Amino acid sequence: MKKPLILVTNDDGVTAPGIRALVEVALQLGDVLIVAPDSPQSGMGHAITIHDPIRLHPSRAFEGLEVFECSGTPVDCVKLAVNVLLNGREPDLCVSGINHGSNASINIIYSGTLSAAMEASLEGIPSIGFSLLDYSHNANFEPAKPFVRQIMEYVLNSGLERGSLLNVNLPNLPAGEIKGVKVCRQADARWKEEFVEAVDPRGQKYYWLTGRFENNDIEPDTDLWALENGYVSVVPSMHDLTNYKALDRMRSLEHIVAPHTLTI
Amino acid sequence: MKKPLILVTNDDGVTAPGIRALVEVALQLGDVLIVAPDSPQSGMGHAITIHDPIRLHPSRAFEGLEVFECSGTPVDCVKLAVNVLLNGREPDLCVSGINHGSNASINIIYSGTLSAAMEASLEGIPSIGFSLLDYSHNANFEPAKPFVRQIMEYVLNSGLERGSLLNVNLPNLPAGEIKGVKVCRQADARWKEEFVEAVDPRGQKYYWLTGRFENNDIEPDTDLWALENGYVSVVPSMHDLTNYKALDRMRSLEHIVAPHTLTI
Repeated sequence: MKKPLILVTNDDGVTAPGIRALVEVALQLGDVLIVAPDSPQSGMGHAITIHDPIRLHPSRAFEGLEVFECSGTPVDCVKLAVNVLLNGREPDLCVSGINHGSNASINIIYSGTLSAAMEASLEGIPSIGFSLLDYSHNANFEPAKPFVRQIMEYVLNSGLERGSLLNVNLPNLPAGEIKGVKVCRQADARWKEEFVEAVDPRGQKYYWLTGRFENNDIEPDTDLWALENGYVSVVPSMHDLTNYKALDRMRSLEHIVAPHTLTI
Repeated sequence: MKKPLILVTNDDGVTAPGIRALVEVALQLGDVLIVAPDSPQSGMGHAITIHDPIRLHPSRAFEGLEVFECSGTPVDCVKLAVNVLLNGREPDLCVSGINHGSNASINIIYSGTLSAAMEASLEGIPSIGFSLLDYSHNANFEPAKPFVRQIMEYVLNSGLERGSLLNVNLPNLPAGEIKGVKVCRQADARWKEEFVEAVDPRGQKYYWLTGRFENNDIEPDTDLWALENGYVSVVPSMHDLTNYKALDRMRSLEHIVAPHTLTI
């Protein structure tokens, strides 16, 4: 039987320990193509590069494997892998991460890791974004690996609905203390911004973005509840931002009259 | 009665004719604060600036109005406006655009214009992203203005569900030919990428992203149908990417066993 082809990407580049852990697991399940950004791309969301050319460099970051570094965003990495490097061969799975730090709840919107996975899902490739709840470079990915592997096996065996991806977050707990997996909805939390203001040597003000996470949605069906209670959270996600519940309530907008009956 | 405060932003900067048209309409309805990027930020999606400091420059782009140019992304513009410039005063409405070119369907995911509006909605501000279906710098915004005004009035009067925004696209038609407004869902279309390959003077390959839009979802309840049939499309949108229909189907993932029972 032919081995599955797994496209691996992230938003932190090929030197991040998180992508090394992900490649290790992927190699147990299939052939691997690695395409990652050549500079840190955290917080890039679903950005694409349209005002600049994009470059692809072959890399020796992983002995014996096919690896490319890309000058663009995480979404660019996926687009180039699929449309240029693979030239028509469809990967069986795309995995992005393992991110150092949570992408649960609203973080999916800002995350380069998850946007890469979403781009793959838009290309029709079953995809998974993985994140470990430890921001440090020295995060320990070992306890998470068996879950990463089993979730990848599930998707390779069962597939995903077209246009769909999984947002998987892994609690930062020792082996044996992770209780299991919960399939959840995205909690409705948000970032409360706090800008740090400073002045440069020429007397000009500048700002650093910082902030704290505020969660007012701690229902047991949410990803944040699962993580706080020692579970791996899996949110089946997609690219449709329509607020279906609001459709009927907004229907009165259709009474707006045509412009030739108004003066402005 | 106190005039409403309207925050105006976009992804193309203060010189774009689209933001000029939007400011004109906004000034008929309230006081205006303009905060826009100081460089083109199309396709930036929900990117935020976390590896660099961000700068804000007062601008004289609009005679007599309060205007700032920001070195960051469209989402950064909204964060800085709300958290630094307004310092606690909540705008009554945020409007972003008018974008030169469609942000219907899947474009909401890539669009800096819509991501700015979404960020405002995350801050609890009713918000609207406007886009005209004409990519040219010389696009004619006049026929769209009465619709822009009436949709803004609707939101100022009726509000929006917290965390919700409107994605409004305006057909490129002469005054009198726009048939009215349709409240729709986001069509499930996508971009089919085609990279243009070239070689620089030093012999190194590079790529330009291009592509064509593929729509396989032309149901009459979609934004693309509305636009193709001469209507303004209004998609009530939000930040929840959960695929609710898939939640139950994925439940078997919860049978994944704890790591201490496996060897990897």
